[in-house]
Amino acid sequence: MSALARSNRVRRTWWTSAVDAAGCSAYTVYNRMMLPAAFAGTDVDAAHLKRAVQVWDVACERQVEITGPDADTLMQMLTPRDLSAIKPDQCMYVPICNRSGGMLNDPVAFKPRPDTWWVSLADGELRLWIEGMAEAGGYGVTVFEADVQPLAIQGPKSDELAARVFGDAVRDLRFFRWGRFPFRGTEMIVSRSGYSKQGGFEIYVERQELAAPLWNALFDAGADLDVRAGCPNLVERIEGGMLSYGNDMSDVDTPFEVGLDKYVQRFDCIGGAALEAHVSDRRLMAVEMEGPVPVCDRAWPITEGDTRLGVVTSAAWSQEFGCGVAIGMIDRRWDAGTEVVVHTQDGPKRARLRETFWR
Amino acid sequence: MSALARSNRVRRTWWTSAVDAAGCSAYTVYNRMMLPAAFAGTDVDAAHLKRAVQVWDVACERQVEITGPDADTLMQMLTPRDLSAIKPDQCMYVPICNRSGGMLNDPVAFKPRPDTWWVSLADGELRLWIEGMAEAGGYGVTVFEADVQPLAIQGPKSDELAARVFGDAVRDLRFFRWGRFPFRGTEMIVSRSGYSKQGGFEIYVERQELAAPLWNALFDAGADLDVRAGCPNLVERIEGGMLSYGNDMSDVDTPFEVGLDKYVQRFDCIGGAALEAHVSDRRLMAVEMEGPVPVCDRAWPITEGDTRLGVVTSAAWSQEFGCGVAIGMIDRRWDAGTEVVVHTQDGPKRARLRETFWR
Repeated sequence: MSALARSNRVRRTWWTSAVDAAGCSAYTVYNRMMLPAAFAGTDVDAAHLKRAVQVWDVACERQVEITGPDADTLMQMLTPRDLSAIKPDQCMYVPICNRSGGMLNDPVAFKPRPDTWWVSLADGELRLWIEGMAEAGGYGVTVFEADVQPLAIQGPKSDELAARVFGDAVRDLRFFRWGRFPFRGTEMIVSRSGYSKQGGFEIYVERQELAAPLWNALFDAGADLDVRAGCPNLVERIEGGMLSYGNDMSDVDTPFEVGLDKYVQRFDCIGGAALEAHVSDRRLMAVEMEGPVPVCDRAWPITEGDTRLGVVTSAAWSQEFGCGVAIGMIDRRWDAGTEVVVHTQDGPKRARLRETFWR
Repeated sequence: MSALARSNRVRRTWWTSAVDAAGCSAYTVYNRMMLPAAFAGTDVDAAHLKRAVQVWDVACERQVEITGPDADTLMQMLTPRDLSAIKPDQCMYVPICNRSGGMLNDPVAFKPRPDTWWVSLADGELRLWIEGMAEAGGYGVTVFEADVQPLAIQGPKSDELAARVFGDAVRDLRFFRWGRFPFRGTEMIVSRSGYSKQGGFEIYVERQELAAPLWNALFDAGADLDVRAGCPNLVERIEGGMLSYGNDMSDVDTPFEVGLDKYVQRFDCIGGAALEAHVSDRRLMAVEMEGPVPVCDRAWPITEGDTRLGVVTSAAWSQEFGCGVAIGMIDRRWDAGTEVVVHTQDGPKRARLRETFWR
């Protein structure tokens, strides 16, 4: 393990001091910002996430604000998902595609106000692409990175913790819906969403002076719930089949190839013609591996006999399921159940393709 | 110091294994790619860089290739620098500006072929902005990340080392010029450039299978020159006043504010109107600080009495000059020589504004 060299360029969040103090042992960099990656260790963190509740600094989910009379038009150009029926309180998972139909990002987006979108970015500065589009295309919009930093509450005790801080009404929030809830004489946008299968909320903090009070309120209110600082957990997210942009997909992969077929709903977007004509010969699948599983810091080739049939894109050892859990981009000619070999930097590992993820 | 969590998303380079083996102790992430930040320590690394020669893995300087009949037109839209007189073998430092005149990136660019630009990016995915521009603006260009990874040779013995590997002709290469030089029966693009004041070259490696042979050839040829693996050095680059995009400037700073006035040569570019109308009330300056100097992982406020007059954006302790060396964005009403206080996370430090950098 080598260190992360810190600098002004790799941006701190409103909670980095608190995250350091809480014992963060490893960070990654996400949208040029610090994202905690482990505290007590990925396994211990995962077990705790599944039984209690964690507070995650996910400020790196930068919010691109698109505002102006053409905001809806521009947003619909970016994605094959039909956005026309979005409810005022709805969050939508929005695959963004380039001219070739490739995935440029897979944000969650919602409209905090009419004519205004917040696009909650995965890693990769999609803001620049949208700004470039708006610049050259003459759209009547302003595009900028909003001064908003999200904080997540994740884990089975999330409802209890959130209710203690935001009031019982937050329990009624439906999945992928958002609302405004009271905090210290103001209101915060809270959505029922987040990057785990354990349930929880994301809070869009809009003022730096509220960041530490919110963090402290959550830890004060949750002491008896065993609340801890946490982060998106590599093991839990693979067990649940949650994709990571940059790991499991990039701009050479279409929505069809990464299992997002159901979001390809209209072809009058930038990638539409390519998606309409698209024939896909590969797809993301779950891959069960023998251990030990090294750090998956590169794509691992997958073979059956002499044939290369794909690559593993993310992997970790699961204590809960007693196997290596992995995601792979696989040639469609191979079916679930196929016995394969995964070639890691520590040598070959036996593995088996699966139709479903573990959770 | 916390660890850097590695993953497939934070891309390895063709040399990451060699860099690890050479004792890299800290990395940063630059354009979603691993960039070494320290080996024996920034001070030891700096002293060695100034007396010998180092090989730097700067693959993270991603090359955006813009190719097609409108490549020149699009490039000139991006920058206020006049590109019309570029020589076939010339590299140009090219400030890229948005509609507000703000710096989107400060790459070095050259034309490996007619109608084709390679734009060697600083941190920040400018490629997405150019792609978005090309998409919405209907330019006759293709924009993509070329499969090219630069390797740098830096230090006073760079000419000797480069000549041993590429032949004596490389000694005649002028500053910011490039040429093709023989290597193992093929040719490589080599420029006299790089992110230090010690002199040297950057080699644009275009085939992965040549990456390890080149690395090994440089270390074999340079053993008696005390060649070592190195990296852009925080101390040396501040001493020399070399700016770092993301640290010392961002898209809220204009070329006038970051000392790049001389490159504002025409106003028929995207940022032209803003730059023509621009009145700047601040500028980057050198700042000499008392020590010890903590890690500058955030902007440090600078005050004189009760007045805040700017921020330090980069800082380090210089063994050579026996002081803290720093770069700050300073209100123009304050002159060199002003005694100020810099407010670091470790408390206030006495400091003084300087007109010039140390080298």
